[in-house]
Amino acid sequence: MKKILLTVTLSLALASNAMAAGDLRKEAIDAGLIPIPSDSRALNKLIGNPDDKQVELGKKLFFDPRLSKSGLISCNTCHNLATGGVDGVASAIGHGWTSNPHHLGSPTVYNSVFNAVQMWDGRFSSLEEQAKGPIEAGPEMAAPAELVVDRIGSIPAYVEEFKRAFKGEKEPVNFDNMARAIAAFERTLVTPSRFDSFLNGDSKALAENEKKGLSIFIGKGCAVCHGGIGIGGEGMQPFPVVGKFKHAGIGDFKGDKDGMVKVPLLRNITNTAPYFHNGAVWSLSEAVRIMGENQLGEKLSDDEISNIVAFLGSLEGKKPEISYPMLPSSTKDTPKPDAN
Amino acid sequence: MKKILLTVTLSLALASNAMAAGDLRKEAIDAGLIPIPSDSRALNKLIGNPDDKQVELGKKLFFDPRLSKSGLISCNTCHNLATGGVDGVASAIGHGWTSNPHHLGSPTVYNSVFNAVQMWDGRFSSLEEQAKGPIEAGPEMAAPAELVVDRIGSIPAYVEEFKRAFKGEKEPVNFDNMARAIAAFERTLVTPSRFDSFLNGDSKALAENEKKGLSIFIGKGCAVCHGGIGIGGEGMQPFPVVGKFKHAGIGDFKGDKDGMVKVPLLRNITNTAPYFHNGAVWSLSEAVRIMGENQLGEKLSDDEISNIVAFLGSLEGKKPEISYPMLPSSTKDTPKPDAN
Repeated sequence: MKKILLTVTLSLALASNAMAAGDLRKEAIDAGLIPIPSDSRALNKLIGNPDDKQVELGKKLFFDPRLSKSGLISCNTCHNLATGGVDGVASAIGHGWTSNPHHLGSPTVYNSVFNAVQMWDGRFSSLEEQAKGPIEAGPEMAAPAELVVDRIGSIPAYVEEFKRAFKGEKEPVNFDNMARAIAAFERTLVTPSRFDSFLNGDSKALAENEKKGLSIFIGKGCAVCHGGIGIGGEGMQPFPVVGKFKHAGIGDFKGDKDGMVKVPLLRNITNTAPYFHNGAVWSLSEAVRIMGENQLGEKLSDDEISNIVAFLGSLEGKKPEISYPMLPSSTKDTPKPDAN
Repeated sequence: MKKILLTVTLSLALASNAMAAGDLRKEAIDAGLIPIPSDSRALNKLIGNPDDKQVELGKKLFFDPRLSKSGLISCNTCHNLATGGVDGVASAIGHGWTSNPHHLGSPTVYNSVFNAVQMWDGRFSSLEEQAKGPIEAGPEMAAPAELVVDRIGSIPAYVEEFKRAFKGEKEPVNFDNMARAIAAFERTLVTPSRFDSFLNGDSKALAENEKKGLSIFIGKGCAVCHGGIGIGGEGMQPFPVVGKFKHAGIGDFKGDKDGMVKVPLLRNITNTAPYFHNGAVWSLSEAVRIMGENQLGEKLSDDEISNIVAFLGSLEGKKPEISYPMLPSSTKDTPKPDAN
């Protein structure tokens, strides 16, 4: 009798839990939070069906420091795939150890395919456009397009790979194709997380505090801006909305011409300290607190913050496995062995 | 009849070719050139049987820029495994964009386990000792040991990994163990080449010009210093022996207290331009010409140089496959999810 009662109670508890999870899932989806598709074909379509050969070439270029003037800085220097797709410093450091002139930090390259616009001021609309910017920018990689194309063109194995990746083009080695290849690789840097499993139907994928945090995240209105498939990245928003950002004095970035700032992706946010455009805040709890004050005009409680931070942890995704590329040698002098 | 004759002729030619290859192989081995063992157990013993857990941890540390003061420079920055284990610049660039004060280049980390001594002046005898040097050196990674240990100790996943890699130690997270792990990883960076296949018995592994080059390399005496399993790296030698190194004016490096310089490994030399301690020479042919003049007191002919360079190309080895490590996050604030 006791056993039956226990079983009934447990079943009811599980049913209620499942129902609650189902409700929360519906709430999240209604709030505009979208899971990364678990189906690889659907995902591939979503990221623009990047061409395999371009992806493979783009991976090499992404890791190749010879795309910079000094030969020392690659895309991966600031968007380090080993450390959440960022460099972990407040203001990006580039050519000649130059700090970003506006004290801007490097946004993560993971899931950047889900950004409707690129750069903190949203000035580029695609990864293909974005990839060219930092290579040419003086304080970053400082390499004029012509130099980069010359360098690539002097490496026979690259020339062959460009020919294969951009079939039928007469002069495939050019700056635009370089950017297209890098972007093709970047499009693949998608990181499904436990939160996606939850949205895709696995009620147990989130812990209780994470679910609480998600509920608060939706209830307080965070998802209004940090929505979509990137959990952010859908466009530009004013910052701050209420009051004054207390670290506004660090750097001189004021957003685009209308004072709008790109909404960062929250995926892998636990990997990408320090926070805000100027990297002023190292603690994620503190960042959430400030967002409450400056964007919602609300003082979040410690408990609310702690649950939101727990939820944000569930956005930490599985990074794609990357075999470190062996780059073709630029020694022009390299001998070709005779045919055996 | 014609067919038989052809067969006989061909067989004779092949036999003579095989005999010649056998002679050359014997000559090479007699000259002290040693192949990387093709047997994995023998190779493992040769590299000091590094512990798997230490290798895996060491790989992460090798790629981790947080071992530097700035958080931006990793071992891999100067010893880039994507580009032959070097940075491809004449004088290494470190913290704050400081050029090496003696205009010294970064030697390759591939096969560095075969160096009897480390550093251009040979001041360290093991990789375990060497690994600490550049991390602490001001113009390189500029991180005091204490800072590094603090950083590592603040990353929970690293602390766990040190415990597993250095079992039974009371305080496994320390600077020496960090260096031991990095060195364990470096010990695995061995690159067998076509030359090893040749020495191990595959006569067809080398093309004719490569064989000619090998024969000249031995005949002229290059193998006297560039011998052993690293094809170099067996110890210190005077440089220059004859005359004056025409690029001696670049930097102020004069060798150790006796004017002796570590003999570089020639494995993967086609990947590691520029050449000499001060990176003064970009062309491998030119480097060979200078070595002839300054070390052998001999003017090598263009033909001899071209064959030697061809032989050196056969030392370009297969690099181990490396999955790019995903490094544990240092966000102290990262939440631990409740047990489900």
